[in-house]
Amino acid sequence: MQNLIEVFHHYAKNEKHTLNKEQMKQFMGAELSGLCKNQKNVESFDRMMKDLDFDGDGQLNFEEFVSFVAGVMFSCNEIYVKRREQPAKGGACQVTK
Amino acid sequence: MQNLIEVFHHYAKNEKHTLNKEQMKQFMGAELSGLCKNQKNVESFDRMMKDLDFDGDGQLNFEEFVSFVAGVMFSCNEIYVKRREQPAKGGACQVTK
Repeated sequence: MQNLIEVFHHYAKNEKHTLNKEQMKQFMGAELSGLCKNQKNVESFDRMMKDLDFDGDGQLNFEEFVSFVAGVMFSCNEIYVKRREQPAKGGACQVTK
Repeated sequence: MQNLIEVFHHYAKNEKHTLNKEQMKQFMGAELSGLCKNQKNVESFDRMMKDLDFDGDGQLNFEEFVSFVAGVMFSCNEIYVKRREQPAKGGACQVTK
């Protein structure tokens, strides 16, 4: 948790403690590169920023940032659970020659 | 983020991937001991669990757990920002004898 707060403030370098579009791109590029490397579509990024910007000030405050992080975690958790529930490939029920 | 998913599943040891009251107490005692050591009040714990339990099944799924974590992070972030904005004690404006 502490780590996420520090990461946010590392990129939110203004006295209002908010992320503008450029800073959010830097955060996603550096911290979520694995997830975002195919996400080069400017329109979808702008739409995401607009959806996250609840108070409409064109920036993301910490609460708006956490709602983004929560969304990413929900998706990652679904993948995590699916992987844990899949029988390991070549498992016991596998018919070996 | 990955860490928080793994911590959740470390305590949510059932096939439904949910935390019951006992497991949530274990999580809070082990992972948030600094924040929770004075929180021994059973009623407030039960009320918190009830508030978090959006689907009313008496357990916390990952989404409900994340809303708890987000609340804790918002409070920690406020403290973090206040500390950063307070002039360091004995700062330049301190009148030395």
